Amino acid sequence: MNIEKFQAAAFNDFHIQAHERNFEHVAANVPDIQNLIQKLQDFQVAIPSWALGTGGTRFGRFSGGGEPRNLEEKISDIGILHALNRSSGAISLHIPWDIPENAASIKALAAQYDIRFDAVNSNTFQDQADQAHSYKFGSLHHVDKAVRKQAIEHNIEVIRYGVELGSNALSLWLADGSCFPGQLNFRGAFKRTLDSLQEIYAALPDAWKLYIEYKAFEPNFYSTTIGDWGQSLLFANKLGPKAYTLVDLGHHLPNANIEQIVSLLLMEGKLAGFHFNDSKYGDDDLTVGSINPYQLFLIFNELVEGMNARGMNHATDLGWMIDASHNVKDPLEDLLQSVEAIMIAYAQALLVDTKALQTAQQNNDVVAAQEILQAAYRMDVRPLVAQARLQAGGVLQPVAFYREFKIREQLIKERGLKTVATGL
Amino acid sequence: MNIEKFQAAAFNDFHIQAHERNFEHVAANVPDIQNLIQKLQDFQVAIPSWALGTGGTRFGRFSGGGEPRNLEEKISDIGILHALNRSSGAISLHIPWDIPENAASIKALAAQYDIRFDAVNSNTFQDQADQAHSYKFGSLHHVDKAVRKQAIEHNIEVIRYGVELGSNALSLWLADGSCFPGQLNFRGAFKRTLDSLQEIYAALPDAWKLYIEYKAFEPNFYSTTIGDWGQSLLFANKLGPKAYTLVDLGHHLPNANIEQIVSLLLMEGKLAGFHFNDSKYGDDDLTVGSINPYQLFLIFNELVEGMNARGMNHATDLGWMIDASHNVKDPLEDLLQSVEAIMIAYAQALLVDTKALQTAQQNNDVVAAQEILQAAYRMDVRPLVAQARLQAGGVLQPVAFYREFKIREQLIKERGLKTVATGL
Amino acid sequence: MNIEKFQAAAFNDFHIQAHERNFEHVAANVPDIQNLIQKLQDFQVAIPSWALGTGGTRFGRFSGGGEPRNLEEKISDIGILHALNRSSGAISLHIPWDIPENAASIKALAAQYDIRFDAVNSNTFQDQADQAHSYKFGSLHHVDKAVRKQAIEHNIEVIRYGVELGSNALSLWLADGSCFPGQLNFRGAFKRTLDSLQEIYAALPDAWKLYIEYKAFEPNFYSTTIGDWGQSLLFANKLGPKAYTLVDLGHHLPNANIEQIVSLLLMEGKLAGFHFNDSKYGDDDLTVGSINPYQLFLIFNELVEGMNARGMNHATDLGWMIDASHNVKDPLEDLLQSVEAIMIAYAQALLVDTKALQTAQQNNDVVAAQEILQAAYRMDVRPLVAQARLQAGGVLQPVAFYREFKIREQLIKERGLKTVATGL
Amino acid sequence: MNIEKFQAAAFNDFHIQAHERNFEHVAANVPDIQNLIQKLQDFQVAIPSWALGTGGTRFGRFSGGGEPRNLEEKISDIGILHALNRSSGAISLHIPWDIPENAASIKALAAQYDIRFDAVNSNTFQDQADQAHSYKFGSLHHVDKAVRKQAIEHNIEVIRYGVELGSNALSLWLADGSCFPGQLNFRGAFKRTLDSLQEIYAALPDAWKLYIEYKAFEPNFYSTTIGDWGQSLLFANKLGPKAYTLVDLGHHLPNANIEQIVSLLLMEGKLAGFHFNDSKYGDDDLTVGSINPYQLFLIFNELVEGMNARGMNHATDLGWMIDASHNVKDPLEDLLQSVEAIMIAYAQALLVDTKALQTAQQNNDVVAAQEILQAAYRMDVRPLVAQARLQAGGVLQPVAFYREFKIREQLIKERGLKTVATGL
Repeated sequence: MNIEKFQAAAFNDFHIQAHERNFEHVAANVPDIQNLIQKLQDFQVAIPSWALGTGGTRFGRFSGGGEPRNLEEKISDIGILHALNRSSGAISLHIPWDIPENAASIKALAAQYDIRFDAVNSNTFQDQADQAHSYKFGSLHHVDKAVRKQAIEHNIEVIRYGVELGSNALSLWLADGSCFPGQLNFRGAFKRTLDSLQEIYAALPDAWKLYIEYKAFEPNFYSTTIGDWGQSLLFANKLGPKAYTLVDLGHHLPNANIEQIVSLLLMEGKLAGFHFNDSKYGDDDLTVGSINPYQLFLIFNELVEGMNARGMNHATDLGWMIDASHNVKDPLEDLLQSVEAIMIAYAQALLVDTKALQTAQQNNDVVAAQEILQAAYRMDVRPLVAQARLQAGGVLQPVAFYREFKIREQLIKERGLKTVATGL
Repeated sequence: MNIEKFQAAAFNDFHIQAHERNFEHVAANVPDIQNLIQKLQDFQVAIPSWALGTGGTRFGRFSGGGEPRNLEEKISDIGILHALNRSSGAISLHIPWDIPENAASIKALAAQYDIRFDAVNSNTFQDQADQAHSYKFGSLHHVDKAVRKQAIEHNIEVIRYGVELGSNALSLWLADGSCFPGQLNFRGAFKRTLDSLQEIYAALPDAWKLYIEYKAFEPNFYSTTIGDWGQSLLFANKLGPKAYTLVDLGHHLPNANIEQIVSLLLMEGKLAGFHFNDSKYGDDDLTVGSINPYQLFLIFNELVEGMNARGMNHATDLGWMIDASHNVKDPLEDLLQSVEAIMIAYAQALLVDTKALQTAQQNNDVVAAQEILQAAYRMDVRPLVAQARLQAGGVLQPVAFYREFKIREQLIKERGLKTVATGL
Repeated sequence: MNIEKFQAAAFNDFHIQAHERNFEHVAANVPDIQNLIQKLQDFQVAIPSWALGTGGTRFGRFSGGGEPRNLEEKISDIGILHALNRSSGAISLHIPWDIPENAASIKALAAQYDIRFDAVNSNTFQDQADQAHSYKFGSLHHVDKAVRKQAIEHNIEVIRYGVELGSNALSLWLADGSCFPGQLNFRGAFKRTLDSLQEIYAALPDAWKLYIEYKAFEPNFYSTTIGDWGQSLLFANKLGPKAYTLVDLGHHLPNANIEQIVSLLLMEGKLAGFHFNDSKYGDDDLTVGSINPYQLFLIFNELVEGMNARGMNHATDLGWMIDASHNVKDPLEDLLQSVEAIMIAYAQALLVDTKALQTAQQNNDVVAAQEILQAAYRMDVRPLVAQARLQAGGVLQPVAFYREFKIREQLIKERGLKTVATGL
Repeated sequence: MNIEKFQAAAFNDFHIQAHERNFEHVAANVPDIQNLIQKLQDFQVAIPSWALGTGGTRFGRFSGGGEPRNLEEKISDIGILHALNRSSGAISLHIPWDIPENAASIKALAAQYDIRFDAVNSNTFQDQADQAHSYKFGSLHHVDKAVRKQAIEHNIEVIRYGVELGSNALSLWLADGSCFPGQLNFRGAFKRTLDSLQEIYAALPDAWKLYIEYKAFEPNFYSTTIGDWGQSLLFANKLGPKAYTLVDLGHHLPNANIEQIVSLLLMEGKLAGFHFNDSKYGDDDLTVGSINPYQLFLIFNELVEGMNARGMNHATDLGWMIDASHNVKDPLEDLLQSVEAIMIAYAQALLVDTKALQTAQQNNDVVAAQEILQAAYRMDVRPLVAQARLQAGGVLQPVAFYREFKIREQLIKERGLKTVATGL
């Protein structure tokens, strides 16, 4: 299904007056407002193909109905999101959950919705039905060369799919690790993983990047073979200039200072980008900004400052992707909330008075530094984000529109109540 | 399949000389050794019916073959464990994964293996195929009375199964909680849970206990409705004398001092017992004693001291159960390792010089207190545990026996390679 | 030194136009704005007497100059804060750091600044020069009755000081605990503490409350004798209706859900109030709202909803106090930032659409529940807080005023550069 | 005071029979026992000069009496430890707490006790009385060049002291960090620190090493400038071949897998060595092995395996030092307990059947891998450690000897009850 232009227009008309009042109030205090609006419009967050269905835990998965039954419908769902918020113009494919059987037609379909293909993701953490070797004891770090070979070839195959679609990055997350002390020789696991990565790296097309994700722990684990940013960076440095470290917000030990990690990876020129989500206890994959929105703002503050210092393009020089699980929310509503939270944090970070902050830092004026950050954070920037959306052809309030126009009900009508999307 | 007596005898004969040398060496320093051996023999750890199969995560489940296909085969598996270590003479049933269709024949079968029925467990964290209402948003705390009623009735049905088998406790764990701020009114959730528990409590037979398990968090959660021992104790106190707090070692926030919780629950007369496992990061459900065996010893130290102070019977006055997940190990081998770790910790705790410890505590002699605890912990008590096993008819080295006599291979031959037990 | 009215007026005049523009914009969307403003004005946060000086760690204390040299100057400092923000009209005394030698004159001085005496705090975590027994191994839980007696009498003496000044609560925090396994018998420590508390409780005047603070850990500790809300509540229930549990935001294990604890303590009628601060890793005693302002908002959301449900008066039925350490900031500026963060969170919580939230909860509409909370949180409520301050006679921007009028410089001139306030 | 040879002999005579019985029992199962004994004898743990006095927290310091009043007495104290356990033959000096006024005489004194000078430690986390610039806002990372210069020169001065005494490493720990978001530009702090380190590195004598310690957090902090092993390794790699990463066991986020970090640093050839201690919640600086002795064993398991793989000498190729705080124990007794715990873990690690472990790992035989590790860990190796001590001229039971011969009482007699050693 598609969002009709006239519906969006009618909706916006109804809300425009209140919006304009708010926008004008906020905009009055923002220097070079059009520049900021432009930056917000340029910023696109990729939606992973597995995020369109209801997520689950080991206890079960409670589907809400109307889930996309194939890749085409997933693209259509992202089309809905993008039509509403104009900030979701990219899809990140997961292979083999979403294999594009006919690349040309898939590309054409995506183009219709103004959606490009972001990083492609491989999967060596689950056994597929027809697979020769099991990943029970890992993939790229496996002691058995045959298993490693299978995993390497899978990754190379994923690159091929990506090339066909116009992606330019392979995003790699391993569940490789150990459950018990003694199970693994850590050095051996590292070296085997490096060997495997080198083979994959060698298969990367020229303009491609390799994103190496790290994760501190998985349930039922004792160690993970790429456990923190230090390990990921070791790999990236040993591999070469195309390899980068990917940060997933939920993949850290308790209390980690993620914003500092982001700053240092930027300094080293080795930050790949982000998997956005939020968490209370572990890798909870909750809606972005639902638990600690100030942390998200601090991360964006480092991004804006650090990317500007390196002359990087905010929109295109790093990979931005959501990686959350929607277990009790409608996935599309959840994604709208996540993208909104990201745009708000980005807008606030753009409003930080960088010069004043530098002066405060130079003077060890800690009170002023905090005042400056919180001045930006405490601003109500929703009207700015809405304005960017409006100018780009979206709707003023995506979630409200989605509900008012009963999108989910229409999807259920089209697809049925019992559909279950591929994924977790 | 059964462990044949003559096999056990042959195995023990082969190892007896080395064992006796070790046992005599250790026993020489233990006052009243037979009393200690008797205590070790009396101590039985219940095996949950879901633990006989390979466990899994949301990514998948890699079965190892020969898994029990029904309750009868699960009892047979526990029979193997118990024949080997003589410390696993109880089963804890999980309903509806393991419904005893014919209670009388199931009881007779268990009796054959010298296995009694420990606490029965209900399940309101998964939807069953035929279920009228979904537990997507919780069970006993649900805002909808009909859902609560369904969950209450399920628990009462579980009690009925337990009565038929001779159990005397209902063990209750809820996955009730919330994923996001605002989703739940905490007080409302608490009160509805209390109402539901009161109805279940009212259905408890006279000599029964209600075990209320708590858990700090689940993946993808923001709150759990029975989140810590304080909340569980609030429920237990409001319910009455049959209600107790169950401690699962993995269900705590990072760094929690579990041994202190155990001591205080004993002080309040409200400790139900344990779900044993170990963990590195969260609720990892790893083999008991595989990550932090000293913590396990400290817990047993509190148990022995606290139960003695109240004149409690170690073997019978609390519930002892393993609750671990075997994802990369043969479940039976893993259970043998877990029971061994428990027996070692218990033996060490029995060897603590309580009087000397009390004197050290009275004098604030912190160095001596540590010396006393570590003197017991550093002893090699494996010969004591083996001797208890030997005298009770078990084998000297259960895991070695299991491998030497190729038990798993036989089970695979009997049951097939592709069987998958019910459970997680 | 005093804030002169004419200075405040001049400052406000200069900023009034911008303020009014902002206030009118926000107020237009707030139903019953004067009621909200009134609530903000009524809400007063107590400043502890030890917070007026620079804090320190075990490595040292880097004083910034102009620190108050006695209780009179501390009251004067709070007078400055209160004159600026009109929300700091209370002082919480710490004995023996700040013994009021002449209660009548101290009361008169405080009255001059419109400051009342909040809970009085005892100290049994440090040895005083003239003290007969050491607290090296604890105070109220000590194995030696003489030490306990000394600590009990100190607390009773603190109550006497409080009575003279018009306080009506004793706030009690113990550093009692153990550094090593075996050092303490947990039950014994609990029971001795209870005995000691009962003697203190018996000495409470009629209208007084006893606040029992808990803390999960201290550096160099293995256990704390009042370690979590569950233990504190056990004490409070055993003591009687005047005993309550005090929540210090920094006193929890990593990832604890503090807002749920708050809700349940309110449900039990046993919440004493708060020690406000913020933290990244442990008990960091950082400026309120400097690390996780959304958590602070969620806590206030529970407070407002829970107190309303019990018909409690927000301003007077619980104790509100800051407990932070200012190691790298000017203490007065830091306190202004903390109070501002509290007022903002309170204002946002007052703006939550409770009815809509209840409906969403009743429908398990998790998306709507989040939208409702975040709608309130994302509002820029600074103009509301400023308006409340303005109407109450304060200044529009306290920190800016403080700097513009060089308050610290004046204090240094009056008191000298090398003064060091009593406290940590 | 000195331990008299005849006292040690008398003590050992009294205990020798029981010891020999135990030793022979254990040794019978150890292949090449003399090789193992030799390794244990060669292994020496440095005692830091600040560890001989009672430690403290920000609340106070409760001295136990007889503390060393100067460096000579500190060396004498280590002489006592070394005479008793023959494993403490090194001192790690802290400047400026323990400046060797006359290097020649200090060296001679240490030689008398068979004590060598291990790494020297600088201190830029406290202001000294005569210091031109304050470290309130950091040292090597400070925004002010003059402060950095002062800190650099202090470090170079520390190297000079070390050269005079025969040390060959500078151990550097910074309390540099920030308390609040915004206070620091992370990249700037990193780069200024690197600049400063480069100047210090340039001043290192030829055979010297630079140990770069990391720490995840300090109380009252928001970030630390060398926060984890990844950051320390970045510095070490940018500095050059003499720079290494030092691991302090207490300096990690909750649940960190330290043994994996150790393994990878060894792989990279960048492990400097250790600061040993134990902890329950944060950087608790508790006695080594008092909280989680299995973790200590796992770390030594990685060390033995990893050092052997690189052909390293266990005793001399890494730095081994205790870094604990003795707040409620006699410091000398505490140090004896710590060294004993280290020797036990090392002995157990030496007993791991490496070949069998490699085979198990090669076969993904997780059960066997755990059995192999735990077989070594569960052995009672105390007789082996005692035998090594005995053969080297020490006493069989150091703590028992210390108490029986009333060493502390004699020290108090010599030095007085109210002495307070320099240090924290």
